Amino acid sequence: MISFASDYIAGAHPQVLKRLMETNLEPLPGYGEDLYCARAKEKIRAACGCPQAQVEFLTGGTQTNQIVISTLLGDHQGVVAAKTGHVSTHEAGAIEHAGHKVLELPQAGGKLCADTLREFVQSFYGDENHEHMVFPGMVYISHPTEFGTLYTKAELEALAKVCREYDMPLFLDGARLGYGLMSGETDVTLEDIARTCDVFYIGGTKVGALCGEAVVFTRNNRPAHFVNAIKKRGALLAKGRLLGVQFDALFTDSLYFELSRHAMEMAQELRAVLHEKGIEFYLESPTNQQFVILDDAKVEELKKQVSFSFWEKCDAHHTVVRFCTSWSTTREDLEFLRAVL
Amino acid sequence: MISFASDYIAGAHPQVLKRLMETNLEPLPGYGEDLYCARAKEKIRAACGCPQAQVEFLTGGTQTNQIVISTLLGDHQGVVAAKTGHVSTHEAGAIEHAGHKVLELPQAGGKLCADTLREFVQSFYGDENHEHMVFPGMVYISHPTEFGTLYTKAELEALAKVCREYDMPLFLDGARLGYGLMSGETDVTLEDIARTCDVFYIGGTKVGALCGEAVVFTRNNRPAHFVNAIKKRGALLAKGRLLGVQFDALFTDSLYFELSRHAMEMAQELRAVLHEKGIEFYLESPTNQQFVILDDAKVEELKKQVSFSFWEKCDAHHTVVRFCTSWSTTREDLEFLRAVL
Amino acid sequence: MISFASDYIAGAHPQVLKRLMETNLEPLPGYGEDLYCARAKEKIRAACGCPQAQVEFLTGGTQTNQIVISTLLGDHQGVVAAKTGHVSTHEAGAIEHAGHKVLELPQAGGKLCADTLREFVQSFYGDENHEHMVFPGMVYISHPTEFGTLYTKAELEALAKVCREYDMPLFLDGARLGYGLMSGETDVTLEDIARTCDVFYIGGTKVGALCGEAVVFTRNNRPAHFVNAIKKRGALLAKGRLLGVQFDALFTDSLYFELSRHAMEMAQELRAVLHEKGIEFYLESPTNQQFVILDDAKVEELKKQVSFSFWEKCDAHHTVVRFCTSWSTTREDLEFLRAVL
Amino acid sequence: MISFASDYIAGAHPQVLKRLMETNLEPLPGYGEDLYCARAKEKIRAACGCPQAQVEFLTGGTQTNQIVISTLLGDHQGVVAAKTGHVSTHEAGAIEHAGHKVLELPQAGGKLCADTLREFVQSFYGDENHEHMVFPGMVYISHPTEFGTLYTKAELEALAKVCREYDMPLFLDGARLGYGLMSGETDVTLEDIARTCDVFYIGGTKVGALCGEAVVFTRNNRPAHFVNAIKKRGALLAKGRLLGVQFDALFTDSLYFELSRHAMEMAQELRAVLHEKGIEFYLESPTNQQFVILDDAKVEELKKQVSFSFWEKCDAHHTVVRFCTSWSTTREDLEFLRAVL
Repeated sequence: MISFASDYIAGAHPQVLKRLMETNLEPLPGYGEDLYCARAKEKIRAACGCPQAQVEFLTGGTQTNQIVISTLLGDHQGVVAAKTGHVSTHEAGAIEHAGHKVLELPQAGGKLCADTLREFVQSFYGDENHEHMVFPGMVYISHPTEFGTLYTKAELEALAKVCREYDMPLFLDGARLGYGLMSGETDVTLEDIARTCDVFYIGGTKVGALCGEAVVFTRNNRPAHFVNAIKKRGALLAKGRLLGVQFDALFTDSLYFELSRHAMEMAQELRAVLHEKGIEFYLESPTNQQFVILDDAKVEELKKQVSFSFWEKCDAHHTVVRFCTSWSTTREDLEFLRAVL
Repeated sequence: MISFASDYIAGAHPQVLKRLMETNLEPLPGYGEDLYCARAKEKIRAACGCPQAQVEFLTGGTQTNQIVISTLLGDHQGVVAAKTGHVSTHEAGAIEHAGHKVLELPQAGGKLCADTLREFVQSFYGDENHEHMVFPGMVYISHPTEFGTLYTKAELEALAKVCREYDMPLFLDGARLGYGLMSGETDVTLEDIARTCDVFYIGGTKVGALCGEAVVFTRNNRPAHFVNAIKKRGALLAKGRLLGVQFDALFTDSLYFELSRHAMEMAQELRAVLHEKGIEFYLESPTNQQFVILDDAKVEELKKQVSFSFWEKCDAHHTVVRFCTSWSTTREDLEFLRAVL
Repeated sequence: MISFASDYIAGAHPQVLKRLMETNLEPLPGYGEDLYCARAKEKIRAACGCPQAQVEFLTGGTQTNQIVISTLLGDHQGVVAAKTGHVSTHEAGAIEHAGHKVLELPQAGGKLCADTLREFVQSFYGDENHEHMVFPGMVYISHPTEFGTLYTKAELEALAKVCREYDMPLFLDGARLGYGLMSGETDVTLEDIARTCDVFYIGGTKVGALCGEAVVFTRNNRPAHFVNAIKKRGALLAKGRLLGVQFDALFTDSLYFELSRHAMEMAQELRAVLHEKGIEFYLESPTNQQFVILDDAKVEELKKQVSFSFWEKCDAHHTVVRFCTSWSTTREDLEFLRAVL
Repeated sequence: MISFASDYIAGAHPQVLKRLMETNLEPLPGYGEDLYCARAKEKIRAACGCPQAQVEFLTGGTQTNQIVISTLLGDHQGVVAAKTGHVSTHEAGAIEHAGHKVLELPQAGGKLCADTLREFVQSFYGDENHEHMVFPGMVYISHPTEFGTLYTKAELEALAKVCREYDMPLFLDGARLGYGLMSGETDVTLEDIARTCDVFYIGGTKVGALCGEAVVFTRNNRPAHFVNAIKKRGALLAKGRLLGVQFDALFTDSLYFELSRHAMEMAQELRAVLHEKGIEFYLESPTNQQFVILDDAKVEELKKQVSFSFWEKCDAHHTVVRFCTSWSTTREDLEFLRAVL
């Protein structure tokens, strides 16, 4: 069945799979000490314009959030996030499982605003009882956000400014980073992110890989004994090559950007189809996720022909649903959708 | 360079990779709810002769040990293991990170003996202070063990008997299970394991897959909300298909057993080469890992031509090193070794 | 200096200390297995009108919240609380440190409302992704709340109803329970609490004891191996008698209620003094905490003569401060306050 | 019944209780910020001959071990201890609950030997896989040990030397420290301990207090935000005075040493009685615990008249039992024992 259910419905971009094939029988050392990991790291540093960056590969998004946050926070600290942030809502309590509180702040369109952040932190330090409270120890944002929205460069810089004033690393979850960077409606580049954030990750799982996220520490701030921390959290792959080869492929000849650009063209087309059909938007995002309101009868009927995602109930008879494009979306998929909508 | 360094030096068995390729563009649901996961589970149940088994896929060995142990143990319990067990020594404290003690017992050849276990548990319950101690809540063994040794069927049954008397699940770490099952020196079958153990896993990472372990709960004893537990521990893959397709391939036409059999033939050949060269064995195992003693000059010289693993220092001038075969070892590799030894 | 800073400014009620003195040299078994613990439990069961109650003693409030919550929750669950609840704000992340999320809901006057709770839980189970989210596994309220407010019997029953529908234990933090029960503005009795809550605690630290809280499980629902859980969390006193003797004294001849009644008479007098002086209330509570707004100059001046607590900044020139009475407050204290205000 | 069951059978030394009484109604700030805590800290610094020491009060021994160890260890580290150490055996897994492994080493008479420690650490760093293992991050000893034995000054210094070479803090559990210091068979003083250890605690619970342990950080090495860490672990007393007043009393006029000396005189007398009665010693210690072997019929008969502790089964018909003296033991208690043995 044609699917717009998510951006992880297909395997890997064919070029990624091809490289796994070509390197398959080479004997390589384990645990990420192979040459493909080294090459991929070098290419990522170059793409970020950040020669001093420390790059590490992990397998999935929740794992990455859990490990980055729990290794960067001190014992007395929690992570600040939007109330709708992925770590706040859809990670089964992975951060709390690691012993840290998510300090949830109000948001708009999934984004955390620098003023809200500053006010919160000021109020925290102004509270005479703050030694009995959870200290704001880092700030988590995602770009694109849960709702597909994007920070502007000015917004990112404003957040970074508050973070630096209060000595809180700024951590950007880039599970869908490629789609954000290739949106037609952004002024933010990968270099901007490397410059403003203390740590971020470049999502592979949703952007062309079978699995894998590349974490980038931009300030020589990778926690000591990081491999041990990964192992202890059950996340160290024996065959680290699986991640190294994929990211090496994704960052060769700008593949990561090219396949993201394709997904964004498909997203533009998707928006056009939805508008054309007069469907009400709940949130029309500048990236690859589009949220629309359908009446429940329509939902039931449509489900028989295409896949999409439940988002939330709107009222007794209407539902918000999500349509996603990705690197694997084709024009044929969109023509089919146009036909059945 | 020719490598006997470990059983995870190569990618995946070509047939596994072929199936990843063939299924790559099929749109599939995420999080292990795809048809390949379902098929693989069905085939594993059949191979185990255990139609009621509950099968779940995870990415790596330490992760699997951590998740199985921490979801099966009660708050007051720890896991009993050999002092040399993988969970005791080489997992960076992953079990303790999950809040549980590893109760380490003496071993012989890496194996835990039923009498030692019974004595320990009896003594625990005989201690009037045991409410202030960590309860033995499950028993961890590996097969093959860290040293490549194997339990006999009688030994497994004896352990299982003690486990049942004291209501402790018996958990078998099968990271190298295929190699154990295809050894010429075993009377233990996969069905025996499914019958005697409460939970075990069939290792993929070291036996033909890019990554992946298949956990088998044999007594309808999978912990409630297990997917949530996996997610919370950062271990849920968005593209569960990566594991499903691989295990589906491994359990089609007995591939898992055939590739394991090949590794064992190569191991027999390796033992022959080592004997032929008059090399002293530290431990000659019935499976794919062989431990020999080399003088340090020889180690240095040999390292230039083949890869192998440091195991431990023997004395001031000698070292124990490990040579492994795997599904990817070739006769040419062994001829090369014969030539350079 | 005269102090209204908190309800833990003095040691223990003299009668409590007298009993510690009288029993001091009796040789008694450790870890709460002494006769005074047994007697105190019996008296508490009687006072609660709940003969089947299981009573356990712990040392302080945060400890009690952490232990009760972390032993009653399943791995996949979090605790629902008001955004202003003590576990949400002022316990340094003790619940998250134990691996569980606090699911924070909107509140009014520090209270959680049954409708808000029901809506949240319904929405949770209505979300198709809820297996990837933290399950609401129990409900935490405090009575009196952080703001000194009280639930009515009808409100408690409405909360209990939702809790039962969704199989969530209702946990009441009674750090200041005596003051709530002896308020002139409540229709809730100790028996009502034992009847509507699944577990609650009777605060000693703030109500006449040197330290100590009595946890009451009302449904034969004390977690298995609870003593082990307490020990493992570092909270088991060798000299359990310290808690047993104190609670035995507090529940002999209704001392707990009498000293609470005195604190409430002092609170009434405090309100009268504050009104008489024309001081603006931020929140006039029915219990022993009163929140008023003072201009900052007044705060500075008053601080030289009496102790009180900072609550929060109101605006650039005004501050919310808290005055507390307790069992140790005297009429002379209030006369002094009247004189200096 | 006359009791030799433990060193925590009585309440507090009368002088300690007297001071609690005298200070009871003084209004004091909470959370350890009162003047008695300050005074007690000053007196302890003086007694230790360590003016720069940072002193903190906690409630019990397991809690202290858990908090000190978990705040001093890095994420990748575990604590080294004797296999028979309290943290290894009798704390219900409190250290593992805090996420850290106890690295258990062989012992003799409950003591860890510097050579064993050095060999272990050397072997750890000599292992090429040590990045996948738990790093030895600190060393735990107790003095007296679980068996009442004592380190010599030379032994302590030898341990400290290894600890410094490998940058591992040396932590001494002094739950029974007074009894060790006042033994007639020791050359170790409190100053020696402050000089050789990086952190240690002076036990109150077993040595004259109702509860309480005084932690001493000797190298300006108290973890940052330590109060927050205590709170987060549920261990911060609202009425910190309870600990401050007690330790202030214990360190006034050498009370701590005097009551310990009394306990040791009683221990000498106990040894004399046991010898006189021809009872076989399992371990005759230089401190307040004596371990003897009784036949089971004798155990049953004696239990009717005096209390003592089960230690372990010796063989089918004999049991090792423990007799303790403490500050509360009287000559009459010993006369009674002499009469009934």
